[in-house]
Amino acid sequence: MDYLSQISKLLRYYCLVSTSAAGSGHLTSSLSAVELMTILYFNGFLKFDLENPDFHNNDRVIFSKGHASPLFYALYAVAGKLTETDLKTFRQIDSPLEGHPSMDFPYTEAATGSLGQGLSIGVGMALNAKYLDKLPYKTYVLLGDSEMAEGQVWEAMQLAAYYKLDNLVAIIDVNRLGQRGETMLGHDVSDYAYKARAFGWETIVINGHNLTEVIKAYKKAEQIKNTPVMIVAKTIKGKGISFLEDQDNWHGRILDQDQFQKALVELGDVDVSINGKIAQPKDIKLKVNKKIKVDVDKFLIKPIKKQLATRKAYGNAVTKLGIKNQQIVVLDAETSNSTFANIFAQVFPERFFEMFIAEQNMVGTAVGLARMGKIPFVSTFGSFLTRAFDQIRMAQYSKANIKFIGSHVGVSIGQDGPSQMGLEDIAMFRSIRESIVLYPSDSVSTEKLVKIMANHNGISYLRTTRMDTPIIYDKDEEFKIGGSKIIYESSKDTITVIAAGVTLHEAIKAYKQLRKNKINIRIVDLYSIKPLDLKTLEKAAKETKALITVEDHYQFGGIGESVKSALVNQSTPVYTLFVDQQPNSGQPAELLAREKIDAAAIVELVNKLK
Amino acid sequence: MDYLSQISKLLRYYCLVSTSAAGSGHLTSSLSAVELMTILYFNGFLKFDLENPDFHNNDRVIFSKGHASPLFYALYAVAGKLTETDLKTFRQIDSPLEGHPSMDFPYTEAATGSLGQGLSIGVGMALNAKYLDKLPYKTYVLLGDSEMAEGQVWEAMQLAAYYKLDNLVAIIDVNRLGQRGETMLGHDVSDYAYKARAFGWETIVINGHNLTEVIKAYKKAEQIKNTPVMIVAKTIKGKGISFLEDQDNWHGRILDQDQFQKALVELGDVDVSINGKIAQPKDIKLKVNKKIKVDVDKFLIKPIKKQLATRKAYGNAVTKLGIKNQQIVVLDAETSNSTFANIFAQVFPERFFEMFIAEQNMVGTAVGLARMGKIPFVSTFGSFLTRAFDQIRMAQYSKANIKFIGSHVGVSIGQDGPSQMGLEDIAMFRSIRESIVLYPSDSVSTEKLVKIMANHNGISYLRTTRMDTPIIYDKDEEFKIGGSKIIYESSKDTITVIAAGVTLHEAIKAYKQLRKNKINIRIVDLYSIKPLDLKTLEKAAKETKALITVEDHYQFGGIGESVKSALVNQSTPVYTLFVDQQPNSGQPAELLAREKIDAAAIVELVNKLK
Repeated sequence: MDYLSQISKLLRYYCLVSTSAAGSGHLTSSLSAVELMTILYFNGFLKFDLENPDFHNNDRVIFSKGHASPLFYALYAVAGKLTETDLKTFRQIDSPLEGHPSMDFPYTEAATGSLGQGLSIGVGMALNAKYLDKLPYKTYVLLGDSEMAEGQVWEAMQLAAYYKLDNLVAIIDVNRLGQRGETMLGHDVSDYAYKARAFGWETIVINGHNLTEVIKAYKKAEQIKNTPVMIVAKTIKGKGISFLEDQDNWHGRILDQDQFQKALVELGDVDVSINGKIAQPKDIKLKVNKKIKVDVDKFLIKPIKKQLATRKAYGNAVTKLGIKNQQIVVLDAETSNSTFANIFAQVFPERFFEMFIAEQNMVGTAVGLARMGKIPFVSTFGSFLTRAFDQIRMAQYSKANIKFIGSHVGVSIGQDGPSQMGLEDIAMFRSIRESIVLYPSDSVSTEKLVKIMANHNGISYLRTTRMDTPIIYDKDEEFKIGGSKIIYESSKDTITVIAAGVTLHEAIKAYKQLRKNKINIRIVDLYSIKPLDLKTLEKAAKETKALITVEDHYQFGGIGESVKSALVNQSTPVYTLFVDQQPNSGQPAELLAREKIDAAAIVELVNKLK
Repeated sequence: MDYLSQISKLLRYYCLVSTSAAGSGHLTSSLSAVELMTILYFNGFLKFDLENPDFHNNDRVIFSKGHASPLFYALYAVAGKLTETDLKTFRQIDSPLEGHPSMDFPYTEAATGSLGQGLSIGVGMALNAKYLDKLPYKTYVLLGDSEMAEGQVWEAMQLAAYYKLDNLVAIIDVNRLGQRGETMLGHDVSDYAYKARAFGWETIVINGHNLTEVIKAYKKAEQIKNTPVMIVAKTIKGKGISFLEDQDNWHGRILDQDQFQKALVELGDVDVSINGKIAQPKDIKLKVNKKIKVDVDKFLIKPIKKQLATRKAYGNAVTKLGIKNQQIVVLDAETSNSTFANIFAQVFPERFFEMFIAEQNMVGTAVGLARMGKIPFVSTFGSFLTRAFDQIRMAQYSKANIKFIGSHVGVSIGQDGPSQMGLEDIAMFRSIRESIVLYPSDSVSTEKLVKIMANHNGISYLRTTRMDTPIIYDKDEEFKIGGSKIIYESSKDTITVIAAGVTLHEAIKAYKQLRKNKINIRIVDLYSIKPLDLKTLEKAAKETKALITVEDHYQFGGIGESVKSALVNQSTPVYTLFVDQQPNSGQPAELLAREKIDAAAIVELVNKLK
């Protein structure tokens, strides 16, 4: 026990050293969790091979309260993986020890810092252990009390209970104080426990600074079956430094030189020679499933009159891919019979996870699954993916390999009205720095693009359409990220019309009407919205008098803007047709007409420009 | 009682009629809530002046399960405000009776359809009644059981309990079935009640089809003090039509002709002459607060060495406005000491609402407050506003007048790292169709723009900077939506540099360095990012060789793209500097330099182009 309190003391020392060297950082939020992490890491509970951080059977630790990074790094210093000198690079530009844990540090499981997201990521890792890789590793998530206000935490709680994740242990560091004052529940640990039990969790309430109680808690947590476990720890923010303890206005503040010296004196002798031992995980081989034989054909949706909605083609495509690639998993937020993720669910129920109507947790869970080597396809209505923008934003910092599918986009969904229409989804996914945005118009291009997405590593988005659309491509047609297709072209083309998805079919109708009057236009299928096929666009700008983009999406951040930006340094005019009025309920054709993104609007504009 | 069951029967009839006429819509989800709404509306509980829907003391009803719109409209038909013919226009393009309630229908309090948002809006209305307008009106929110999976609902629950909203009554229609199958909790009403109690609510569990039980529930709800009340009603999806009752695969499906006839037969005689009476609200005058005398000056933050961070200037500005305009309220998500909303909180504690770390509910609450005539200023870090994109998206359909303030934007926040950096926030707010996006660079422009925001009706966004920046404008300088400022210009300008916020100060530094070498550049402060000052941009494009935009934001959907799109049809080249690499922790100056958005990068590019 003395060894453990020595480690706690050393951890506090390292937290002081790193934050003072940085001149910023969250010292007091780190100090409150010292004993909780001392025991987890150095009393045999955590099983982790430090030499092989990616080992599939390592236990996982997520600091959902990412601002406690000084403690996070201190743990690996005690474990011998960082020196005091390393710790002094905390928050410096070339240091892997960032203000919030990032993937530059090899022991970070997921980038955190936007509060309330860590438990969802843990759910993904725990789902993987229990249902996919069938491994005994445990997932531990350290939560702050302030972040319990985030609804996403409760989305994760209910789902973890629903899936009986007894391999998931959450630890709430109830230090009472948030950034600007007391939390809603203050030090009322029993209230946290009450809520957690109501959400189906086993709870253990302890004094988070009493090593014996902390040890008992982790022991008990190991024995609990069929439900996830929440350790609710009453702690003191700033614990260990008298003038910081339970004091307001110290969040994210560090000590001045005198205070720093005073703190060191209070800590007393620190044994920097201690080398904390972390237990080794069991060396279990990962079972590689043998080839599966399944006749998917009877589950697939067949075209009717050579028409098939791209959302249905997505369901077909991901299911076919699922045979060869067993890393593919599918998550859907209670819309699988609309997104057609349900085809995959029927064929591979063990690799489909119903996430219910909780998009934020769905994306966080996907981050956890991706971290464990799975390839999550995440689907709901395009409009409802906006619910998880912060989680998608953070997923990029976790370097997560996730495929997003948004169905029911644009006014062409018709009668359900604007609340269900994805009209900002292209703008949202384009804004993610390294994202790929794809928007197929028929079932062939959809199937090809879904396959390309599966093989691309990173965040990509596929936009699918509700209504059935004609199949325009031959099944051998090839597609690529950053590509486009010319549907019609001739030497006599006057105008180029650039469209994707449902508006491509309007453009094709327009082409046919214009042909009757001997007017030739070029039609480009811009199925890759990000990146753009600049070559084809520039060629069209050279060879035709004007370009017209047509999209079932609002103006800002959409296809028109992206084409305009790409072509700014040439003189051919670019005209943009987009959803300009607030849509309402109506028939798809009526709405496309009212927004002037249908064939008639294209014909009208071409006649004006030709 | 017979009168009430006649009304229930008539409501069911109207639901059948409207959905069958539309050929789509959510019949079964409407039928389950018929008795719950019959009693609320027509047994004296709801107090609402149908002739004056905006009357300040009307009780409020929000259909959070917006897909139950057939029932919603049927209620107003029974009340005599819609005819059966009106109902048959359901979901038609020119009908106010949209697929999900929209503001085109005069009795809609808030646009719903993205699930899990209605309770937050109700919280806003209830906060207004209890703490601001001090009125006795009650707010009723009808929730679906599926949407209880949304974390936002639990954010609203905890906050409603925290603020002791005993004027808020939620009714969960537990009909067991979601869109694609059974919900997580199925028919386990006691589980819903357990969770609600854990979140501090009084609960009443009933059979939602037993009129006597429903009456008792509303009666009891009226008597409960100091806590909000949740009526948990066990119901049957499709209730009243035997072949629909508790059946899967009927969500959002309607009846064919035979089924429709069969259903009518089952309903039996319906008395369409019934005119349901809704009770009148008390005619209470709205107290208009007399002029307040308060010396804000001692609370305001003074510039140091002619420098002041725009986030601090925001805090000053909204507080000063708060004196004259008592409709202004401020909401913040546990960051008020970073956004400086805490200045307002100190001066006007009764008009400041701490929303804790729950951005989704914060925005929903603001929608409710805006509906009641308040002008909510909603602040947190720009990065964390992405957490509420779906709520912001829906706010536009509620025609909500909300001012968003995002602080800590861009890499210039420094050491906290990317999780805390607003780098997609401009793209997000621009994507909202009618939004205004403002980005001031000094305290004077901030104060002027905050005032302009307060007077503009709609969704606007102000982007503020963490670090102190020099005051560059005279206090009498005027600003406007769609405006810009030319900081430097001359007849010898070679290049125009367009910047805003922190990069404007880098541009000014660049100007001074270039002047030393007799190179003149024009500097434009693009403080209004949406709409753009096209005239000034086009003039610069005419008068200088090239334009350079510089922004502390990612590329896609940012300032550079918006300027490029605006200038596409002219030939002057536009170059864009933006955050191009994934940032990490570091000193602000280091990060601005690494991303090549600092003075040195501007000088380098100008020298290349000049």
